[in-house]
Amino acid sequence: MAYFNGVPQINFEGAKSSNPLAFKYYNPQEVIAGKTMEEHLRFSIAYWHTFTHEGSDPFGTGTMQRPWDQYTGMDKAKARVEAAFELFEKLNAPFFAFHDRDIAPEGATLQETNKNLDIIVAMIKNYLKTSKTKLLWNTANMFTHPRFLHGAATTCNADVFAYCAAQVKKALEIGKELEAENYVFWGGREGYVTLLNTDMKLELDNLARFFHMAVDYAKEIGFTGQFLIEPKPKEPTKHQYDFDAQTAMAFLRAYDLQDYFKMNIEANHATLAGHTFQHELRISRINGMLGSVDANQGDMLLGWDTDEFPTDLYETTLAMYEILQNGGLGKGGLNFDAKPRRESFEPEDLFYAHIAGMDTFARGLKVAARLVEDRVFESIVKERYKSFSEGIGRDIVSGKADFHTLELHALHNKPIVNKSGRQEQLKGLLNQYLLEM
Amino acid sequence: MAYFNGVPQINFEGAKSSNPLAFKYYNPQEVIAGKTMEEHLRFSIAYWHTFTHEGSDPFGTGTMQRPWDQYTGMDKAKARVEAAFELFEKLNAPFFAFHDRDIAPEGATLQETNKNLDIIVAMIKNYLKTSKTKLLWNTANMFTHPRFLHGAATTCNADVFAYCAAQVKKALEIGKELEAENYVFWGGREGYVTLLNTDMKLELDNLARFFHMAVDYAKEIGFTGQFLIEPKPKEPTKHQYDFDAQTAMAFLRAYDLQDYFKMNIEANHATLAGHTFQHELRISRINGMLGSVDANQGDMLLGWDTDEFPTDLYETTLAMYEILQNGGLGKGGLNFDAKPRRESFEPEDLFYAHIAGMDTFARGLKVAARLVEDRVFESIVKERYKSFSEGIGRDIVSGKADFHTLELHALHNKPIVNKSGRQEQLKGLLNQYLLEM
Amino acid sequence: MAYFNGVPQINFEGAKSSNPLAFKYYNPQEVIAGKTMEEHLRFSIAYWHTFTHEGSDPFGTGTMQRPWDQYTGMDKAKARVEAAFELFEKLNAPFFAFHDRDIAPEGATLQETNKNLDIIVAMIKNYLKTSKTKLLWNTANMFTHPRFLHGAATTCNADVFAYCAAQVKKALEIGKELEAENYVFWGGREGYVTLLNTDMKLELDNLARFFHMAVDYAKEIGFTGQFLIEPKPKEPTKHQYDFDAQTAMAFLRAYDLQDYFKMNIEANHATLAGHTFQHELRISRINGMLGSVDANQGDMLLGWDTDEFPTDLYETTLAMYEILQNGGLGKGGLNFDAKPRRESFEPEDLFYAHIAGMDTFARGLKVAARLVEDRVFESIVKERYKSFSEGIGRDIVSGKADFHTLELHALHNKPIVNKSGRQEQLKGLLNQYLLEM
Amino acid sequence: MAYFNGVPQINFEGAKSSNPLAFKYYNPQEVIAGKTMEEHLRFSIAYWHTFTHEGSDPFGTGTMQRPWDQYTGMDKAKARVEAAFELFEKLNAPFFAFHDRDIAPEGATLQETNKNLDIIVAMIKNYLKTSKTKLLWNTANMFTHPRFLHGAATTCNADVFAYCAAQVKKALEIGKELEAENYVFWGGREGYVTLLNTDMKLELDNLARFFHMAVDYAKEIGFTGQFLIEPKPKEPTKHQYDFDAQTAMAFLRAYDLQDYFKMNIEANHATLAGHTFQHELRISRINGMLGSVDANQGDMLLGWDTDEFPTDLYETTLAMYEILQNGGLGKGGLNFDAKPRRESFEPEDLFYAHIAGMDTFARGLKVAARLVEDRVFESIVKERYKSFSEGIGRDIVSGKADFHTLELHALHNKPIVNKSGRQEQLKGLLNQYLLEM
Repeated sequence: MAYFNGVPQINFEGAKSSNPLAFKYYNPQEVIAGKTMEEHLRFSIAYWHTFTHEGSDPFGTGTMQRPWDQYTGMDKAKARVEAAFELFEKLNAPFFAFHDRDIAPEGATLQETNKNLDIIVAMIKNYLKTSKTKLLWNTANMFTHPRFLHGAATTCNADVFAYCAAQVKKALEIGKELEAENYVFWGGREGYVTLLNTDMKLELDNLARFFHMAVDYAKEIGFTGQFLIEPKPKEPTKHQYDFDAQTAMAFLRAYDLQDYFKMNIEANHATLAGHTFQHELRISRINGMLGSVDANQGDMLLGWDTDEFPTDLYETTLAMYEILQNGGLGKGGLNFDAKPRRESFEPEDLFYAHIAGMDTFARGLKVAARLVEDRVFESIVKERYKSFSEGIGRDIVSGKADFHTLELHALHNKPIVNKSGRQEQLKGLLNQYLLEM
Repeated sequence: MAYFNGVPQINFEGAKSSNPLAFKYYNPQEVIAGKTMEEHLRFSIAYWHTFTHEGSDPFGTGTMQRPWDQYTGMDKAKARVEAAFELFEKLNAPFFAFHDRDIAPEGATLQETNKNLDIIVAMIKNYLKTSKTKLLWNTANMFTHPRFLHGAATTCNADVFAYCAAQVKKALEIGKELEAENYVFWGGREGYVTLLNTDMKLELDNLARFFHMAVDYAKEIGFTGQFLIEPKPKEPTKHQYDFDAQTAMAFLRAYDLQDYFKMNIEANHATLAGHTFQHELRISRINGMLGSVDANQGDMLLGWDTDEFPTDLYETTLAMYEILQNGGLGKGGLNFDAKPRRESFEPEDLFYAHIAGMDTFARGLKVAARLVEDRVFESIVKERYKSFSEGIGRDIVSGKADFHTLELHALHNKPIVNKSGRQEQLKGLLNQYLLEM
Repeated sequence: MAYFNGVPQINFEGAKSSNPLAFKYYNPQEVIAGKTMEEHLRFSIAYWHTFTHEGSDPFGTGTMQRPWDQYTGMDKAKARVEAAFELFEKLNAPFFAFHDRDIAPEGATLQETNKNLDIIVAMIKNYLKTSKTKLLWNTANMFTHPRFLHGAATTCNADVFAYCAAQVKKALEIGKELEAENYVFWGGREGYVTLLNTDMKLELDNLARFFHMAVDYAKEIGFTGQFLIEPKPKEPTKHQYDFDAQTAMAFLRAYDLQDYFKMNIEANHATLAGHTFQHELRISRINGMLGSVDANQGDMLLGWDTDEFPTDLYETTLAMYEILQNGGLGKGGLNFDAKPRRESFEPEDLFYAHIAGMDTFARGLKVAARLVEDRVFESIVKERYKSFSEGIGRDIVSGKADFHTLELHALHNKPIVNKSGRQEQLKGLLNQYLLEM
Repeated sequence: MAYFNGVPQINFEGAKSSNPLAFKYYNPQEVIAGKTMEEHLRFSIAYWHTFTHEGSDPFGTGTMQRPWDQYTGMDKAKARVEAAFELFEKLNAPFFAFHDRDIAPEGATLQETNKNLDIIVAMIKNYLKTSKTKLLWNTANMFTHPRFLHGAATTCNADVFAYCAAQVKKALEIGKELEAENYVFWGGREGYVTLLNTDMKLELDNLARFFHMAVDYAKEIGFTGQFLIEPKPKEPTKHQYDFDAQTAMAFLRAYDLQDYFKMNIEANHATLAGHTFQHELRISRINGMLGSVDANQGDMLLGWDTDEFPTDLYETTLAMYEILQNGGLGKGGLNFDAKPRRESFEPEDLFYAHIAGMDTFARGLKVAARLVEDRVFESIVKERYKSFSEGIGRDIVSGKADFHTLELHALHNKPIVNKSGRQEQLKGLLNQYLLEM
C-alpha cells in the first residue's frame, strides 16, 4: 500500500510552483562550490522521529496520525519500512538512520529479538538494492527499556553490561550488512542521577572498556563505518558523561580511544550544554574530530531537548560555514534528529517539516559558500592575527621565543595598539549575505 | 595604624560566647579524622575581594567602606598590606592569595610596574617571617587592563602575548620569592566574543605555547609550586576556553601538558558551566587532577558569577566529602574567592562573611568525616556495584571479556534484576548526618 | 489484599528506633508554636505520582513496581483506591489530592467516563467515612488526552472547550461529594506552542469566561472549597499563561476574578519561572493570595519539572517561615507533588520518599518557628525600615508627603547614611538556627 | 569641534554605494504600508551607551576611544552634547533618550547638581530648535550612586526616598522643558538582594506611593508625556519588582495605577525573564499597554544583560509585526538601548552598530508589512479559531453558554476533531518572507 497517498510528490522547482510542498532553495543538482547541493547536504531521515515517535510528551499521550498504526507487532515494523522507503523517495532523501529497536520490536528472548531484526534487516537490504537512499548510520537503543535504568555500559549491573555488548555486537553486524557509513554511540543513560550512589571512576573505566571491545569487534568483522560519539549534557539523566565535544575528547584521550572516534554534533545538545552549535562544530573541526551532524534546533528558552526541525537561517549558515571549512563531512551527514511538534500531527507535517529543514540548510549552504568564496571572515581573521606572522609573533609561533626574549620585547615599552573586533559590522555583513544571494 | 580597630578579636569558642564574631563550628585545633581542622581546612583570604574590591557592579559604583581608602597610589598599596596581615591574624587565616595587580599598581612602564611590585613583595616577605599566614598562590591579572581586551595568551596581538609572558615571568619569580604553594592560571579573557573574527586554532595553540614556556621557566628558576588551571565557562567573555574541568583536561592532554597542571575548582564556576560543585571536584579527583578549591557559591537563579561566601551546608559537606576521598588537597587550599554583597559594605561584614564561610566549611568537614567514617555512601556503592567483582562482571573489569563472551552470557536470557537507586533515602540520610553531629 | 505487605508500619519515634522507616523530626502530636505539627503540616499525598505514575521519562518506559499493576481497567482503579488508603494509613497522611483521570479511566463516551468516576467516587467516599485522611483538593486532567493538544479552556476548538466545561462541572460535583477543601486549576495546556498561529487575546478571554462559569457553578451547587490557580511557566507548552504568581494575579485582576481564587504555589514551578520558592510564597502572601502549596523541589541545573521530594532544609525552613507569617495555610495544605526517581522503583521507595519529605518539612517548621519566636528577621527588618515610622518617612507612608515636601527635605542636603544589609551575617544565623534546634 | 571627523556621512542609498557606512535596507523616505519608514521606525539613540559608557565590564576597565574624553567635568558634559547632535545628524536619528546623570555630573549638593542639569538642558534645548532630532524620553538614574544601594523608591531609608522624589520632580520638569514624548521608570535597584532582610509589602506600597506622586506632579506641571515602566527581572539586584510585563501590570492594577502607565519593552529584558521579545510585546499589546520599545538583543547563552545592537532578523520582523498590529507605537519609539562590544571600541563602531540595528529593523518592517498585507498569519488564525464564531463557540464568546449547556453539548459525544497547528510550515513560510522581499 502507499502510506502517503494524499501527499503530492515533492517539487524541486521552488518558487515557480504553486505546490505547497515545493522547495524554494533546495535543488539537489544545483552546483555550489564545485559540488552538487546533494553532495554537500547529505540529508538523513531519522527513523525514530519519523516512523516510531507517537507524539507523547511528559504530560500527554501520542497524537500522531500515522497510516501504519493500523498494524501491530512485526506487521507494523514491516509497514514502517514500506512507508519509510516511500517517504525517502518522495523526499529524495540520500540517507536514513535508525536505532535497532526503531526497526523491530523486542521479542521474549534476545534470540527472538535478533530474529525480528534479521527479518527487517533483510527487508531493508532488499530496498537498498534499488533505492537511492543509503544508511548513514545505525545504533543501539540502550536507554528505553527499564533494564537500562541505571545505565548501559556504565550500569552498576554486569548483566546489563553484557546485554549491551550483545546488542552492539548485533548492531555492528547490521551496520556491516547494510553498509552503514557510520556507527553512533549516544549515551542516553550513560551518566548519573545522583553522585551519592555512583562510582564514577568504575563507570567511566567500564565505558572505555566497552568502546575498546566495540573497536576490536568492528575490526574483527571488517566493519569500516566511522565510529561517532554524540555528546549531550543531560536528559534523561541528571548528568551525562559525554557532556559536550570537549568532554568526550577528554575521555577519548584519557583512555587512548581518540583515533577511533569522531563527534556527531547535535545542535540542540550543543545549546543544552551552554554552547552555540557553531562552537561545537568548530572545536570538533580544529581537533580533527568533526564526524557528522544531528541537524535540528532547540528552543533557547526551554531547558529540554525539543528536537525541532532546523529553520533558523543563522544556525544553518554558520553550520555549513564550519562544514565547508572542514572540507565537508566525509562519511558523515546531516541527520534530521527532529520531530514535528506534538500539535503538528498530520502526515503532511512530516513533509512540511523536512522541507523546511532541507530548505533552510540549502539556503545556509549557499550563503556560507559565498562567504567562503568572498573570504569575508577569512580576510578579517588574516589581518587580525597578522602580528603572529612576523617579528616576535612569528618567533612565538615557531617556538623560538621564551619568557626571556618575550620579557625583553615587553620591556621596550612599545605602545600596545589593539584594533576593534568589529563584531557589529560583521553581524551586519552576515545579514547582507543572508538576504542577498 | 590598626585598620580594624572597632572589630573585636575573633572568638573560637563558639556557642559559649556572646561575641557576635564567634565561630560556632570552626575550632582550628579540634581533631577530625586524624588531623586538626586547621590542617584539613586550608582557608585562604582572597586579596582582591577583601582588599581591592570597591563594591561596584555593572549598574553602580563602589560602596565599600575601607579604612585604607584614605590613601592613594603606593601608600594605599602599603596600607592594604598592613590591613591584610591584621585581618589575617584576627581571622587566624592560614593562607592568602593575590593577583600581581591587587598588591601593587601599574606604573608608567613595565619597569616601574615591576618596581612597585618589588617594594610590596619585600614588605609582604617581611610580614611572612613572623605571620602564621602563608601564600597559597599568586597569579597575574591579565584581564582588567584594556590591553587584554582581545585576550592575554590567546590575544590576536603578539605584543600583548609578549607582555603577558613578561608578567607571568615576574609573577613566577614572586611566587618563588614568597614561597607560594601554587600558581594559578585563570583565563578571564582567554576565549572569544564572537567566532566570526576568531582563529580558535591559533589561539589554543598559542595558549599551549604559553603554558609550556611557563612550565619551562618555573623549572629554570626552581619554582616548585603546583600549577593550577581554574576553569570558568564564560564571563567576561562569551566563551572561555577553560569551560570546565573536562574541557581543561582535554586541552592539557591535547598539548601534552597534563603532567604539569591540576585543577583549581571554583563552586560558582562549576554551576555557571551547568555542573554541581561536587561534580567538578569528583571528575577532577578521579582523574588525579584535583589541586585546589575556590570556596564560594553562586546564585542558581542568576547567570553571572556572584562570588558569594559559601553558606550552603550541602555544598560544603559534599565538597569536603570529595576532598577527604582525595586524601586532602595537598598543596591546595580553600580560597575564599568571595565578596560581601555590595550592600554589606561595612568593615565588620568582612568578618561576618569570612566567619560564615569558615563555619559552614567546618560543619561540612565534620559531617563529611562522619559520613566517611560510617561508610554511609561507600557501603551503598560497594553493594551496588558488586556484580563487577564476581563472574562476568569481574571478567569485564579484568579485561578478559569481549563481545563474544558477553553475547554468550546475554543469550542465556537470565532475568536481569536491577535494584532501586534509593536516592530519596540517601538524601534523607544526608539530612540526618547534617543535623545530628 | 494488602498492597504494602512487606513494608513495616511507619514509626514516629524517630532516633530511638532502628526501623529504617522511622521519622527523625516529624512527630504529628508534638506542639510547635501553639499547634500540633499535624495541624501545621497539612501533608497531602498526590494520587498521580504515587498511584498512577509508571516511571516513564521522555527516553524510557515505565519502571515502577506496583502491586496493583496486576489488574487492568476498573479493577486496577479499585485496587489503587485500596492501596491508597492503606498507604495513607501507614503514612498517617491527613490529606490526599487527585485529578479525575487518576482515579478512574476514560470510557468510550463521556457518560461512561462519568459512570466510571461515580463508581470510584462512591468507593472513596466510603473510605473517607472511617479514614482520618481527607481530600485536600481535586482537579480535572485536561492535558493528557490528545483532544487537549491545542489547549483546554484556551483551545482553538469550541468542542474541546465544551468538553472541558463538562469535565470541570463533574469535578466540582465530585469535590462537593467528597468534601474537598479546595479545587485546583493547573493549566498544563493553557498556553501556546508558537505565537505564529495563536490568538492570545481570544484564548485569555475564553479562559476568563471559563473561570467565571466555574465560579458560578460552584455557587450554584454550594461547593465551598477554595479555588486555586497553580502557576507554571512552561512544560508541556512553550509558554503557559499562568507563568508565575504575579502573572496569574494580573490575569485575575484584569478579568475581575481576584476575589474567587488564591494561589497554589509549587516549589519546582517557582524555580522554573526564575524565582525562589520563598519569593512566590511571599508575593502571594502579601497580596493575600497564598492558598496552598505543592511541596516538592526541582533540580536547579535541569530545565524541566523534576518533581523531586522536598529534601532541602533551606527551602522547607523558608517556606514554613512564610506560612507561619501567613497564619498558616487555612484550607490549603502541603501536597507532595513529587515522585520517586525513575531509578527508585521499589514500593519501599514510596515510603522513604514521603518520610524524607515529611521529615524535612517537620524540621523546617521547627526552625522557622524558632526564628519567628526569637524575632530574628523581624527585629532586623523593623530596625532597618524604622525611618519610615518617623519624620519624613512617616509622612510618606501616611500619604502626607508629595514631591514638593520631599524635594524640600532633600534640598537640605542632610548626609544620606545607609547601613549594611548584613546578608552574610543573616545567612550564618540561619545556619545556626537550622543546625541547633 | 567636530567629534566624528573621520567618519563619512551616512549613506541611505544602500546597495548602490561602496561606502561601508551605507544602509542596505533602511531608507527613511520609502513608504511602507502607508507611512514612511521614518514614521514607522522612530529610532532613538541612547545617550548612556553612546556618550557615557566607557566599555568597562565586571572584570575590566574602560576601552572606548571617545574624542570627548579629552575634557572633564562640565566641559565634558558639554562636549558630549555637541558630539551627540553631530552623531544624531549623521545618523539622521529622529529621537534620543537620556538619564539625568548621563547629561550632567552630580555636584556637591542637590542644588549644584540641578544647576549642572539646567546648564546642559538649556544647551540641549537650543540644539532642539534646529535639529530634526527630538527627545523620545528622559528618566532619572537612581541606581548608580551608592545612596541607592538599598533601592530608590523601595529603599529602607526615607531620606533616599525623598532624594528620589526630588530627582524625579526635576526630571519631569526637564521632560516638560524639552518636550519629551515619554518618561520612563526603570527600577534598577527596585527589588531585593535577600528576602531575609526585606519588607516586601512596605517596599511595594512605597513604590506605588511614589508613582502616584509622580502622576500627580506631572498633572500639576502639565507634563503630557506618556509614563512608561520598563520591566527587567534581575540585574543588578537579585530580583527586581518589575520582573516582566505581566508582573508590572499586576502591580499597576493592585495599586490603581493602570491608567497612567504603559510598558517600555526591552528585548534583552524579555529573554532574561524567560520570554521571547515577541511575547512581551504581544501580552502588552493585547492589554492595551504597549508603549515603547528598547531595541536591543541579548545572548541567549549568557545570563546577563548584554545590550547588543539588534541584528537578528527574526526578532525585528516579529517585533515589527506586533507593532504594526498595535497600529504603531504612538508616542513610543525604538530606542537602541545597546552598546558596541567592549572590543568594538573605535568611534566608527558606533556607526556600524547603529547602522546594523537600523537596517535590521528596516528589513524587519518590510517583511512584517508584507506578512500583514498578505494576511499570512491572520488567515491561519481566523481559520483556526473559526469554531468560536459559530454554534456553541459563539455562545461561549457571547456569554450565552454555561456549564449546563456546555455539558449538554459534550454529552452528545460528537467526535472531537483537531487540526494540525502547522508550526513547521509556518516557520518555513516566515523564512520565505524574510528572504524574498
